[in-house]
Amino acid sequence: MSTAGQVIRCKAAVAWESGKPLSIEEVEVAPPQKNEVRIKILFTSLCHTDVYFWDAKGQNPLFPRILGHEAGGIVESVGEGVTDLEPGDHVLPIFTGECKECAHCMSEESNMCNLLRINTDRGEMIHDGKSRFSINGKPIYHFLGTSTFSEYTVVHVGQVAKINPDAPLDKVCVLSCGMSTGFGATVNVAKPKKGQSVAIFGLGAVGLAAAEGARVSGASRIIGVDLNPSRFEQAKKFGVTEFVNPKDHNKPVQEVIAEMTGGGVDRSVECTGSIQAMISAFECVHDGWGVAVLVGVPNKDDAFKTHPVNLLNERTLKGTFFGNYKPRTDIPAVVEKYMNKELELDKFITHSVPFSEINKAFELMLAGEGLRCVIRMDA
Amino acid sequence: MSTAGQVIRCKAAVAWESGKPLSIEEVEVAPPQKNEVRIKILFTSLCHTDVYFWDAKGQNPLFPRILGHEAGGIVESVGEGVTDLEPGDHVLPIFTGECKECAHCMSEESNMCNLLRINTDRGEMIHDGKSRFSINGKPIYHFLGTSTFSEYTVVHVGQVAKINPDAPLDKVCVLSCGMSTGFGATVNVAKPKKGQSVAIFGLGAVGLAAAEGARVSGASRIIGVDLNPSRFEQAKKFGVTEFVNPKDHNKPVQEVIAEMTGGGVDRSVECTGSIQAMISAFECVHDGWGVAVLVGVPNKDDAFKTHPVNLLNERTLKGTFFGNYKPRTDIPAVVEKYMNKELELDKFITHSVPFSEINKAFELMLAGEGLRCVIRMDA
Repeated sequence: MSTAGQVIRCKAAVAWESGKPLSIEEVEVAPPQKNEVRIKILFTSLCHTDVYFWDAKGQNPLFPRILGHEAGGIVESVGEGVTDLEPGDHVLPIFTGECKECAHCMSEESNMCNLLRINTDRGEMIHDGKSRFSINGKPIYHFLGTSTFSEYTVVHVGQVAKINPDAPLDKVCVLSCGMSTGFGATVNVAKPKKGQSVAIFGLGAVGLAAAEGARVSGASRIIGVDLNPSRFEQAKKFGVTEFVNPKDHNKPVQEVIAEMTGGGVDRSVECTGSIQAMISAFECVHDGWGVAVLVGVPNKDDAFKTHPVNLLNERTLKGTFFGNYKPRTDIPAVVEKYMNKELELDKFITHSVPFSEINKAFELMLAGEGLRCVIRMDA
Repeated sequence: MSTAGQVIRCKAAVAWESGKPLSIEEVEVAPPQKNEVRIKILFTSLCHTDVYFWDAKGQNPLFPRILGHEAGGIVESVGEGVTDLEPGDHVLPIFTGECKECAHCMSEESNMCNLLRINTDRGEMIHDGKSRFSINGKPIYHFLGTSTFSEYTVVHVGQVAKINPDAPLDKVCVLSCGMSTGFGATVNVAKPKKGQSVAIFGLGAVGLAAAEGARVSGASRIIGVDLNPSRFEQAKKFGVTEFVNPKDHNKPVQEVIAEMTGGGVDRSVECTGSIQAMISAFECVHDGWGVAVLVGVPNKDDAFKTHPVNLLNERTLKGTFFGNYKPRTDIPAVVEKYMNKELELDKFITHSVPFSEINKAFELMLAGEGLRCVIRMDA
């Protein structure tokens, strides 16, 4: 029996207040409106951004809210005006969108859509400023337009990537955010040439995805930089060949790297968000041709500071957002890279829990254990 | 009668001490040694860098010295090991070199040769650490390895671009430094696409050469930024379509430009060396795809400072040196662009003086009058 056009009652993990365990509740999910699709989520994984907005320190808190943005699912029904998706399509909801009409979407270079660019403050759908989630008539806020910690969710069509139905959703769900962000930063922005050296700052999930991009690009040396030496063993699986802990040295890490490489690495990718790491990542690239790419999100009062001669000596500094991928146009091809075994994803998935134990995923991340924990919605 | 292998006595303009008028003297010019060529200079022009090292404020003063680095001439004789140049070749001496063997020369991206990269402190030839210039046996220091304020000079072969003998040396001499620096910054590094907008910070000779690059690239809008409004009239000849004087506004010029352009220009090129202009040039480019290129040389204590989110929003910041041109490999083709009338040079040459009046060229530059003054050596 079709549920299209009807309110669906299902389970969702609701964050009632900052920092408190999520509570599995029965929620009502309204039908998709104009340019929206309703998706049955099969797998979702936990990303630091979920934890950051759950913790809600230094932000405008927005509760109750359904978090979650890395996920894979199947379209249940579509709203008015949706022509390129239909029920049964396998999809990844994405935290940032692609309207295909604005100057950014028309540009070959940008993925920062004017209409659907990430908005962490918005808790409602842009069509009518209302939530599609409610409990006994009381609205529950959306998160990033995705809210994947729910058996069903409603997402703007511009935030939905239609992918190969043969792709295992329990694996490719991690391409919704973190793995694409790191991998794309290397292959789309840093673009190391075969045989070049790459430094990766931060060996968490995003940094290791950046290292995976360096491995796939044929980098000769992949130098991992992290304050936590226990991360090196795991990083070797991702192609990291050398490890530098800034704490082990009395001089700035950029000088250590310059000495290791005869003047600097060819490319660097910064995945921590620490302003000092950003500066080091820039200053550790070789003059003449070095390219540094910033991925990590800094604190709002940070200032990036360097001597301009570091730039005049022909270094390039670039930032990236979601690995410069356009969500609808480019992500299906990243899924194909996984299907063709070019890109390895399974090694990122270190844990798996049933939906009923979603708080364990939070505990693992807070303890710094593992990379990605996939949450099985049907379990 | 050939002068090869012999000391040549000729006229040179000697800077005896900082800030004092040059003095035309008879000097001895020794024959070229290994990997050197002796060049008869026909035309030389004055660049700010000459004035900067003549003024010698805040540097290690090196006097007596023969300044000059923008010039055109003819090879008189060659030293041991020089195989790709011969007497009679038309050449431009260049202040930075290309050994064709180091990692920078082997890289497609860099022009910062390890052996012959610009060195403002060196006053002798690298072959034997000696000067080729003397007066009554007392050595006179070289400048940038070029010292073109002399009827004859000795230059390392790696700093000599062999050009089309039909090219008028009184025009193409300005490609030795300033015009190539500005033009190359735009066409090789900023690379505006046809129809894009470009902001140029600083409407001196280098900035106008950058504007010429934007014009040649088919930019739709070229916004000139300068504190001196009298420069706008002249700048129109170089394709500058709009003018912004930061002094006319109560808000930062990057905000003014963002408002004029619906979010920012597509490309910017900074040609002043002012740290504030560098920051504005970066922050005035559009998010998603904007590229800012730094050309101007800053003070040694300056710090480039910006909020890292300006980078994460997919802006690119690059510096360039000599327009990213490799002196020997690339400059001959820039001369051809002038010969094909793609690139206009005549409009840069606003003054001309005979060698005997070289101090007038200094006076014009110190007064901020004109763009390039060409000095005729045979007059």
